[in-house]
Amino acid sequence: MAESDGGRSFFAGVDLGGTNVRAGIVDEAGVLHGGIVKMATPKDAGPDAVMDVMAEIIKQAAHSVGLEGKRLSAIGIGSPGPLNSETGVIVWTPNLPGFENYPVTARVVEKTGRPTFLEGDANAACFGEYWMGAARGARSMVMFTLGTGVGGGIVLNGKILRGPHYTGGHVGHMVIDPQGPVCGCGARGCLEQYASATAVARRAAEVLQKEGRSDLNGVPLERVASRHVAEAAAAGDDAMKAVLAEAGRALGIGFVNIANVVDPEVIVVGGGLAEAGELILGPAEAFMRDRALFPPRDEIRIVPATLGDSAGIIGAAGCARNRYVTSR
Amino acid sequence: MAESDGGRSFFAGVDLGGTNVRAGIVDEAGVLHGGIVKMATPKDAGPDAVMDVMAEIIKQAAHSVGLEGKRLSAIGIGSPGPLNSETGVIVWTPNLPGFENYPVTARVVEKTGRPTFLEGDANAACFGEYWMGAARGARSMVMFTLGTGVGGGIVLNGKILRGPHYTGGHVGHMVIDPQGPVCGCGARGCLEQYASATAVARRAAEVLQKEGRSDLNGVPLERVASRHVAEAAAAGDDAMKAVLAEAGRALGIGFVNIANVVDPEVIVVGGGLAEAGELILGPAEAFMRDRALFPPRDEIRIVPATLGDSAGIIGAAGCARNRYVTSR
Repeated sequence: MAESDGGRSFFAGVDLGGTNVRAGIVDEAGVLHGGIVKMATPKDAGPDAVMDVMAEIIKQAAHSVGLEGKRLSAIGIGSPGPLNSETGVIVWTPNLPGFENYPVTARVVEKTGRPTFLEGDANAACFGEYWMGAARGARSMVMFTLGTGVGGGIVLNGKILRGPHYTGGHVGHMVIDPQGPVCGCGARGCLEQYASATAVARRAAEVLQKEGRSDLNGVPLERVASRHVAEAAAAGDDAMKAVLAEAGRALGIGFVNIANVVDPEVIVVGGGLAEAGELILGPAEAFMRDRALFPPRDEIRIVPATLGDSAGIIGAAGCARNRYVTSR
Repeated sequence: MAESDGGRSFFAGVDLGGTNVRAGIVDEAGVLHGGIVKMATPKDAGPDAVMDVMAEIIKQAAHSVGLEGKRLSAIGIGSPGPLNSETGVIVWTPNLPGFENYPVTARVVEKTGRPTFLEGDANAACFGEYWMGAARGARSMVMFTLGTGVGGGIVLNGKILRGPHYTGGHVGHMVIDPQGPVCGCGARGCLEQYASATAVARRAAEVLQKEGRSDLNGVPLERVASRHVAEAAAAGDDAMKAVLAEAGRALGIGFVNIANVVDPEVIVVGGGLAEAGELILGPAEAFMRDRALFPPRDEIRIVPATLGDSAGIIGAAGCARNRYVTSR
């Protein structure tokens, strides 16, 4: 590619996670070149060691597509937070010890010599789906990611809604029931207590126990995960269908709030639990079509995410591209 | 003023309501000159008659500050909707018969010869508070207007969040309880069923009846309005304090959702019920400070609106100014 890349610009997208650091090379049109390079996050060795790994996989990712590192226009890093994407500093983050007021972009610039930009991981994934995934071509979108928690993000006319405290787009912490279960954030009854993979697994175990069942198709109650619930529901287990429908209804409340307050063109739903498909998205969409204001209730499109776990890498690269272009 | 206005630009701001049409003259710095001119909306005579009245009060407002109508740079109209502010068409609106797909701005241009822009009334009031009122100097704000319903609006970096279906900012229709009272919008348990002046009056009457009281300080149950509730609560009536606190708590759920999803710098609260002050805003703010994500829970400012019913006129003029400037 080095010989044939002409005047194209290339960007590295990095996903910094508590388990792995992953990187890929994305061109200015959003196309991911080659594969995704991944290494375990040496989190117990401290942030400087994590930065060494990050610089190394960026180099490897570039080499794997025949580019020298210096040929990269910029680097984008999606990271858990809270963080400040203007200063490039991670304030702190639960799964990466030592990242306290840690200047990620400054360190990466030192190690690579390339302009580097930091973005929240949920925002990066959301921007990936906006730029190249399920919301491609839309002007505005809101994403819900149904995983361990419920993450999300908002893009309006090409811009991530970050907010002055970098909290915009935390759709998983809309209040569904102020008397509901305590959430990891300290509040009660947040959407993620109903519509995350974790919440669905917990609820399924409660229901199974109440029904006197000691396992779900051979999986013991304490090991039931949301995918077992989805499989059982797909195979016709009415109790598990009801668990997913209940989660879908909570998600539908979230959709109504978003439709009426943000009014996006598209709502994108990703994350592991979204793989339950219509079993969860059907009830969620039906609730929104019934309850949101007209015309968004009829017109907002609800679509599954399409980029899987490359969304964060493509999106981080896209954020870097946009900020690199506007900073010149 | 005609002699001394130098190079200043002037804009007419109009508030089209089901009862009155009101207009005022605002300069490019947002200062309202002279008073607000008002005439009854001849709504039963149809939209063309309403347009004649609108043209007349714009002329009167301009004359009252010594300007010829043609000296106005542009006209901004805040109107109930749904409407399309790009085409300047009111789609329909409950309290103005005959305004169905009615081209308001085209008619006003015909009658006045001045560039005219249409904006939703709630957005216009919100923009007024952003530009010249309680949120002046902030980059982003969300407004809650506690009146007959709960209206609102969102301004991010100087731009109204309208959404592709012109529904953005309808904060009164966030879901507080999906099993709650039926709302005018057709859904159940919307915020405005708990935190509007109407809802507070209804809830107070229920509580008074349950307590076997036939009046509230001489006001018969069927005529109790939210201001009577606020007066009684301020004078120490514990049951009425509880009614306002309950409304405040629902409003607080709305604040949490907005803090976590939109993350504005400021939340502005206006409308008649906001005059109950700390009796409603105290519990609402406490709920947000307890439940929203950090750091917005500590940092978002919650402030009362300051422009009263000139917010819509100043805001409509401000929207016209911005769109006039960017259209040239």
